[in-house]
Amino acid sequence: MAGNSFGTLYKLTSYGESHGVGVGGIIEGVTPGLELDMAFIQNELNRRRPGQSEITTPRDESDNVEFLSGVFEGKATGTPLAFLIRNKDQRSGDYGNLKDVYRPSHADYTYQTKYGIRDHRGGGRASARETIARVVAGAVAKLMLRPLGVIIQGYVSQVGNIKLEKSHTDMDLSMAETNIVRCPDANIAKKMISYIDTIRLDHDSVGGVVTCVASGVPVGLGEPVFDKLHSVLAHAMLSINAVKGFEYGSGFGAASMLGSQHNDEFIKEDGKIKARTNRSGGVQGGISNGEDIYFNVAFKPVATISKEQNTVDMHGNEVVMLAKGRHDPCVVPRAVPIVEAMTAMVLADAVLMNKTYK
Amino acid sequence: MAGNSFGTLYKLTSYGESHGVGVGGIIEGVTPGLELDMAFIQNELNRRRPGQSEITTPRDESDNVEFLSGVFEGKATGTPLAFLIRNKDQRSGDYGNLKDVYRPSHADYTYQTKYGIRDHRGGGRASARETIARVVAGAVAKLMLRPLGVIIQGYVSQVGNIKLEKSHTDMDLSMAETNIVRCPDANIAKKMISYIDTIRLDHDSVGGVVTCVASGVPVGLGEPVFDKLHSVLAHAMLSINAVKGFEYGSGFGAASMLGSQHNDEFIKEDGKIKARTNRSGGVQGGISNGEDIYFNVAFKPVATISKEQNTVDMHGNEVVMLAKGRHDPCVVPRAVPIVEAMTAMVLADAVLMNKTYK
Amino acid sequence: MAGNSFGTLYKLTSYGESHGVGVGGIIEGVTPGLELDMAFIQNELNRRRPGQSEITTPRDESDNVEFLSGVFEGKATGTPLAFLIRNKDQRSGDYGNLKDVYRPSHADYTYQTKYGIRDHRGGGRASARETIARVVAGAVAKLMLRPLGVIIQGYVSQVGNIKLEKSHTDMDLSMAETNIVRCPDANIAKKMISYIDTIRLDHDSVGGVVTCVASGVPVGLGEPVFDKLHSVLAHAMLSINAVKGFEYGSGFGAASMLGSQHNDEFIKEDGKIKARTNRSGGVQGGISNGEDIYFNVAFKPVATISKEQNTVDMHGNEVVMLAKGRHDPCVVPRAVPIVEAMTAMVLADAVLMNKTYK
Amino acid sequence: MAGNSFGTLYKLTSYGESHGVGVGGIIEGVTPGLELDMAFIQNELNRRRPGQSEITTPRDESDNVEFLSGVFEGKATGTPLAFLIRNKDQRSGDYGNLKDVYRPSHADYTYQTKYGIRDHRGGGRASARETIARVVAGAVAKLMLRPLGVIIQGYVSQVGNIKLEKSHTDMDLSMAETNIVRCPDANIAKKMISYIDTIRLDHDSVGGVVTCVASGVPVGLGEPVFDKLHSVLAHAMLSINAVKGFEYGSGFGAASMLGSQHNDEFIKEDGKIKARTNRSGGVQGGISNGEDIYFNVAFKPVATISKEQNTVDMHGNEVVMLAKGRHDPCVVPRAVPIVEAMTAMVLADAVLMNKTYK
Repeated sequence: MAGNSFGTLYKLTSYGESHGVGVGGIIEGVTPGLELDMAFIQNELNRRRPGQSEITTPRDESDNVEFLSGVFEGKATGTPLAFLIRNKDQRSGDYGNLKDVYRPSHADYTYQTKYGIRDHRGGGRASARETIARVVAGAVAKLMLRPLGVIIQGYVSQVGNIKLEKSHTDMDLSMAETNIVRCPDANIAKKMISYIDTIRLDHDSVGGVVTCVASGVPVGLGEPVFDKLHSVLAHAMLSINAVKGFEYGSGFGAASMLGSQHNDEFIKEDGKIKARTNRSGGVQGGISNGEDIYFNVAFKPVATISKEQNTVDMHGNEVVMLAKGRHDPCVVPRAVPIVEAMTAMVLADAVLMNKTYK
Repeated sequence: MAGNSFGTLYKLTSYGESHGVGVGGIIEGVTPGLELDMAFIQNELNRRRPGQSEITTPRDESDNVEFLSGVFEGKATGTPLAFLIRNKDQRSGDYGNLKDVYRPSHADYTYQTKYGIRDHRGGGRASARETIARVVAGAVAKLMLRPLGVIIQGYVSQVGNIKLEKSHTDMDLSMAETNIVRCPDANIAKKMISYIDTIRLDHDSVGGVVTCVASGVPVGLGEPVFDKLHSVLAHAMLSINAVKGFEYGSGFGAASMLGSQHNDEFIKEDGKIKARTNRSGGVQGGISNGEDIYFNVAFKPVATISKEQNTVDMHGNEVVMLAKGRHDPCVVPRAVPIVEAMTAMVLADAVLMNKTYK
Repeated sequence: MAGNSFGTLYKLTSYGESHGVGVGGIIEGVTPGLELDMAFIQNELNRRRPGQSEITTPRDESDNVEFLSGVFEGKATGTPLAFLIRNKDQRSGDYGNLKDVYRPSHADYTYQTKYGIRDHRGGGRASARETIARVVAGAVAKLMLRPLGVIIQGYVSQVGNIKLEKSHTDMDLSMAETNIVRCPDANIAKKMISYIDTIRLDHDSVGGVVTCVASGVPVGLGEPVFDKLHSVLAHAMLSINAVKGFEYGSGFGAASMLGSQHNDEFIKEDGKIKARTNRSGGVQGGISNGEDIYFNVAFKPVATISKEQNTVDMHGNEVVMLAKGRHDPCVVPRAVPIVEAMTAMVLADAVLMNKTYK
Repeated sequence: MAGNSFGTLYKLTSYGESHGVGVGGIIEGVTPGLELDMAFIQNELNRRRPGQSEITTPRDESDNVEFLSGVFEGKATGTPLAFLIRNKDQRSGDYGNLKDVYRPSHADYTYQTKYGIRDHRGGGRASARETIARVVAGAVAKLMLRPLGVIIQGYVSQVGNIKLEKSHTDMDLSMAETNIVRCPDANIAKKMISYIDTIRLDHDSVGGVVTCVASGVPVGLGEPVFDKLHSVLAHAMLSINAVKGFEYGSGFGAASMLGSQHNDEFIKEDGKIKARTNRSGGVQGGISNGEDIYFNVAFKPVATISKEQNTVDMHGNEVVMLAKGRHDPCVVPRAVPIVEAMTAMVLADAVLMNKTYK
């Protein structure tokens, strides 16, 4: 209701602020008996972790997850899986001088107006630190999807004007994890890293695009009309901090195409019905058709930069502000596991929903 | 749950198939006492109506709405507002020859696989005829938003490669309703109409983009984290048939921008806090900031074309099919009222939710 | 949200008023492919129907259901099953004189205060005519439960001070349908009928109790903590007009029992685990244990009586009113199919939910 | 969905097991700016606390609540209020011998069958320890209701065959807190205490009834049809462990009454519309009418007794078991704050929902 939950059957309800006790959540819908691979879950958190490389924020949080319920002898019991990640490297002092300031393109003004009160330290609930809970729930969702053969792989396909033009079908996506910018093409990755470094030294930030591919998805996932699989994916992706756009399959490019060019013919291959091309992006009529689901997620440059900016404060005074908080020069490398996590949650939920028809 | 409802407090639950008895829905959350302006509601339906001009499908349905409950002496009572639009111009025969065929880029294959049964006539539940219910619920939402000063105006900003490059702030958007393609720039409109006509004569279809602007939106709408206002808008838009992408504010363009270019400075103007620029698209931290909310919605070319296509049938036989059903050469002119309707529903729901904080 | 829906996966959203166009609903969660036995559905409606015998209201409505969607060639398609029952025997004139009057123990005052507007004719949305939608959704739920071997049988166990003392295990419950008061014991039934007739002639009304038994329920239905199977049953039953109480298994009698008397020992019988006694009422820890689920539902005497009553009107004037509308002297015989319908909906929903764990 | 949440706008999602890390929850819908009176919240927990008197279980848990989010400088921020109460006095060893045993009238068998796995220690999720989360959420709800003048007072009205026959209107209900059995009549209280002591010494348990009264409730709370105020209260109460029945207003007694006896006449008093009598129990048509809301909740004797009992184990072997765990001889005194908490949650939720109509 109030925007703290995602999913219906596989569901995360999250809580927590940047500079409070911690962030966490309650996961429902975990298959009873599922082996909770704690090392895998922690590894997913590490992929999101600040301070993991020279191109991410130096804010250093080890982000160790404590499970509070729903596990017995290493297995999920089917009861709610609650977890908590305590905040550690809090420098609330960094934000003291911004207590009353409405930072440009941040949520300070809107939160204050909506609620009449806000935890101003580090963005409070609006901080991207909230995405930790998503990564935990996404990791558990991946464990649920694993036996079905679903593989979810995200990667960075654009940083500023540096674009990876290759299709996901022409690359080994697992190479994305071999460099700090998470781009599967080593050459492009090098350019991206070098560019981000320039941005960092200039105290600025830059946007980018994350592409995500889910393969091995069974046919039939997604609900018609209002909860089409791609609608829910769009909802999921746009809910990630700093996201400005979503397109799947042919995406915005479809606007300039003809039907005769765009349609995906069905064929029979190895006794199975397949699509010859995949402009549909693995979803037709809102329901997965067994082909790869792929989509792009556009991120704006993070609003926190270490440059002077003009703005106003709560009292309407014009002020010049300079953020002291540490920030990412480019958020997309760390956004990859978050995009994957949201994808995994959407698919796990759809899998559970689909069981009810049998 | 099963994708037939949209919204939480202002909520539409819809039903109906293309060639069944009709389509309709139940609207909840209508303010008790609201005057139901039936002429306005019917006019919105007429804007969506097939056969309204030479560039839309010749399928001719007058789409008269019958309200079944929730109205007393012309006013909403606060109880559910149910409605029904009976189907009339059904030519089920058009679809008989496609009974077993999986039409390319349609939902036939996925529905059949998901449910094991489907109403094959005209796409059944997957037909865009379903959007009638959205237009009715959107019209009622507009009536609720009217006293708040919210104005929602959509328009066609791209057809094929013909793009309207002007910003929404540089045009009189109401001009969109003065031509059949719904583009507010008369010159571009002419080119679009002429292009669509070529496509029609070639028995093909073409994609496009609808831009939508909501102005006068109060500050504070939208819920943090998972139900950010733009996430819900994205969900809403991607749930419309044939939509492939959504971007708001700076959108995909933000990916190549720097933070120092992108941030919207706050200023004080006439005693009110405003943003000097609006790359945020009227939403910050998921909550409306009072500036114009604007976004683009990409539509693929409709899958139904009157050309021969290769595909397979239910039994896996390769077949060559030729659709006899009447179709739109370009869906975007008729999509404008649907995009507006979904926007109105999202905002009305957010308005109701926001009342609970006071 | 606004009280018009019941259930989560198997879900009815209902609409309609006593003297409007009609009442109806949208059913979601119907198993795709389910044969919709229309004669059975109509028969369930006939069991609820006014005017079915001399001890029910003479208001005569044949209550024919029209399905608007979700059915194809006699089978459910998995898409929403919408339906409408048009109102026919409306004597709105009966209510004209009560336009401004707050009838004692009716919903006139509370609706008017909550909404600031109400359809005063025949109680509007608060009329028991709304239960028609429940009976339709319950009938479809029974069709879904039939292949699982679930049998739901309600009966009248009390009318005024006339009580049926026998346990449900000591009677042939199907005998309930052999008399107009729906009591499986012919002798008690006779007394009840004769008593109701006296009440009717005296222009009064009287309360009663409906008992309901669900047998053949699989082990494992119901969700822990807040949605225990019996909690949802209680919710369902108390939502029926005129219901004042609910108890299951040992019920209120349990308050005066000792644990050593009350506990149900587990035994092994024919290779299956069973309970030797069934004070648990077929539910333990909120989850069905395979034994009979049985419960009692207390109904107050209907508030509409044909006697003069003192009350006030909307303007605060004291008035003496005399209801002209036709009413049931005792509502419980017609409530039996409604209690069964709600039970079937609860169980069908639980069955669907339970599939998600496998 | 899976039974871990209660409420829609004011909502608790709870987690935790008897012998895991702890129990807790996430509360949504707390009014931003609400002063969180921590002493009051802790005091409510103390009222539920085991070991508070000689007639409760000697299991001694101090149950200190830690808030994890949603509070800033002592006030609620409007973001989710997460909390955790760590388990302390765990004697898992007490349960080792019962690992495989299906205890009579417990949830062991149903949980094991539903999930295929369970945390057998102390009942796991089915333990009444789960109700701690309810008491915290109820205490916060009481703080929200306080400025509206709503007062909720529960008390014990029956223990075994010892019944308090007086109406709630004839007693000073606050006296309930002056004795350990929480009965507002000192004489009856004495008898109840002495009786419970006998039961305790006999290693048995006994049932009882809690009555609860909410006064000062504004007119208009509750939603029609499926979410009538009393339906939601019934749902809430039946979700509490060991509850077997619920009745409000005239309750089961209404079954033997005539309409002419039962109807509550409206009168005008001090310029306000009131009901002369209150058999309606403060709710008409599912909506509060401003009179006292009162209801009874029946509890069975707790299933855990320190006597030998026959049962079977997971493998189907007949066994004789003797519970070593500490238990309450009569649960109703400690159930009073839980009943109140659920009532407060229901009313707070209804208050929020009602704001959406204005």
